[in-house]
Amino acid sequence: MAQETAGDRPASAAILVIGDEILSGRTQDVNTRYIANYLAQIGVDLLEARIVPDDEEAIVEALNALRARYTYVFTTGGIGPTHDDITADAVASAFGVDIGEDPRAIALLRERFSEAELNPARRRMARIPKGAELVFNAISKAPGFWIGNVIVMAGVPMIMQNMMDVIGPRLAAGPPVLVETVEADGVPEGAYAEGLEAIARGHEGVSVGSYPAFTSAGISNQIVLRSRDAALLESAAQAARTMIESLSKELALRT
Amino acid sequence: MAQETAGDRPASAAILVIGDEILSGRTQDVNTRYIANYLAQIGVDLLEARIVPDDEEAIVEALNALRARYTYVFTTGGIGPTHDDITADAVASAFGVDIGEDPRAIALLRERFSEAELNPARRRMARIPKGAELVFNAISKAPGFWIGNVIVMAGVPMIMQNMMDVIGPRLAAGPPVLVETVEADGVPEGAYAEGLEAIARGHEGVSVGSYPAFTSAGISNQIVLRSRDAALLESAAQAARTMIESLSKELALRT
Repeated sequence: MAQETAGDRPASAAILVIGDEILSGRTQDVNTRYIANYLAQIGVDLLEARIVPDDEEAIVEALNALRARYTYVFTTGGIGPTHDDITADAVASAFGVDIGEDPRAIALLRERFSEAELNPARRRMARIPKGAELVFNAISKAPGFWIGNVIVMAGVPMIMQNMMDVIGPRLAAGPPVLVETVEADGVPEGAYAEGLEAIARGHEGVSVGSYPAFTSAGISNQIVLRSRDAALLESAAQAARTMIESLSKELALRT
Repeated sequence: MAQETAGDRPASAAILVIGDEILSGRTQDVNTRYIANYLAQIGVDLLEARIVPDDEEAIVEALNALRARYTYVFTTGGIGPTHDDITADAVASAFGVDIGEDPRAIALLRERFSEAELNPARRRMARIPKGAELVFNAISKAPGFWIGNVIVMAGVPMIMQNMMDVIGPRLAAGPPVLVETVEADGVPEGAYAEGLEAIARGHEGVSVGSYPAFTSAGISNQIVLRSRDAALLESAAQAARTMIESLSKELALRT
């Protein structure tokens, strides 16, 4: 079910984080960053993420909006055995397909649970929309699934990461996004912003960001440059380094 | 500009996180969780969050979708001095209002910068949509702003938190969402899922979640119950505690 990208355009992606626990502040979502880094390394552009509660209508609406727009949609959360785990049913509803107990999923659960342990709650984890392919995980055995361009994964980070390793090699990979970071310690953003804009304008195809940080030691900004073109990236990074060195000297003279 | 909620319905909110650095995986977003906890404490329901890149079209579309639907929209990121800081312009565009250098914002920046230091890049931080109210922060002096039901804040967590403290008291607060956590150490989710569903069904008005965690010490699940009704919450939590204690004993007998 791996998809080809259209022409030279890299594959795009969105993440749909499902779970009351994120929106209530109980849980710090760390899955988005993990998936973001994973996708950057295989050259898939992550263009949006949404967080919705355990609410079927909210899940269906977000999923249908995202899957119409991006090459892939990765969901996390809501595929466990409890009543608030409604992701599989919501995905089936979004796709307009039936859902039921999948014998392949039951077989996987039987690797972990005895027939007696496989109670109705645990059997819920075998509810898979019709037409979906299972996504295995070695940790809990309860599978995620892949339907259309939507990949449904667990919310527990360790299990989600295991699932990414399973499906990652089958995603339409492109040239990875290369990153250069230029440290701008001690140089305020406002001092280099104009120069940086000129560098960004002069290097189309390089995304140039500036990220300030305030620590007890003072300003420690970073300029982050990202591109699929190694030579262009190096040219932009070199320009940024030269600019920061020059500003550092200038600031040092003043103090 | 504090808003009244309609009848007994609590105020609702969404967060719009703006920044390539989140979607590239460079930066772990921690603002969503902070705002989520803040809103839960003042009784505002956070119902959605979105993360979009530093792209005007993406910001405008998400902002217009969210502001039409929720009492408040909180944005974070993109209000600094560099070329990738485009949030203020995007918000003006979403509202269809003009934007320009705001004398009140310039006055604030002058508390930090001399006239010579206030170069064109830093003056960008004084670009405020017409009709917006400024949101002060004591750390960087560069203001956020409040326009319609949208509150625009910095992305640097320390500054964002300072802004939340400034605007928080003016939000339409309601009864806080109370939380009870029942530890279910050693009891697998699949063993209590059916009982938990019955408890959830018997306590309408209590949101009941189950969050598994796998550590080297084994299973350490948590049941989290949330409600604005203290008595109802306590009743549900007590039922969950009783159920877990009973299952713990049963499991101990088997081993």
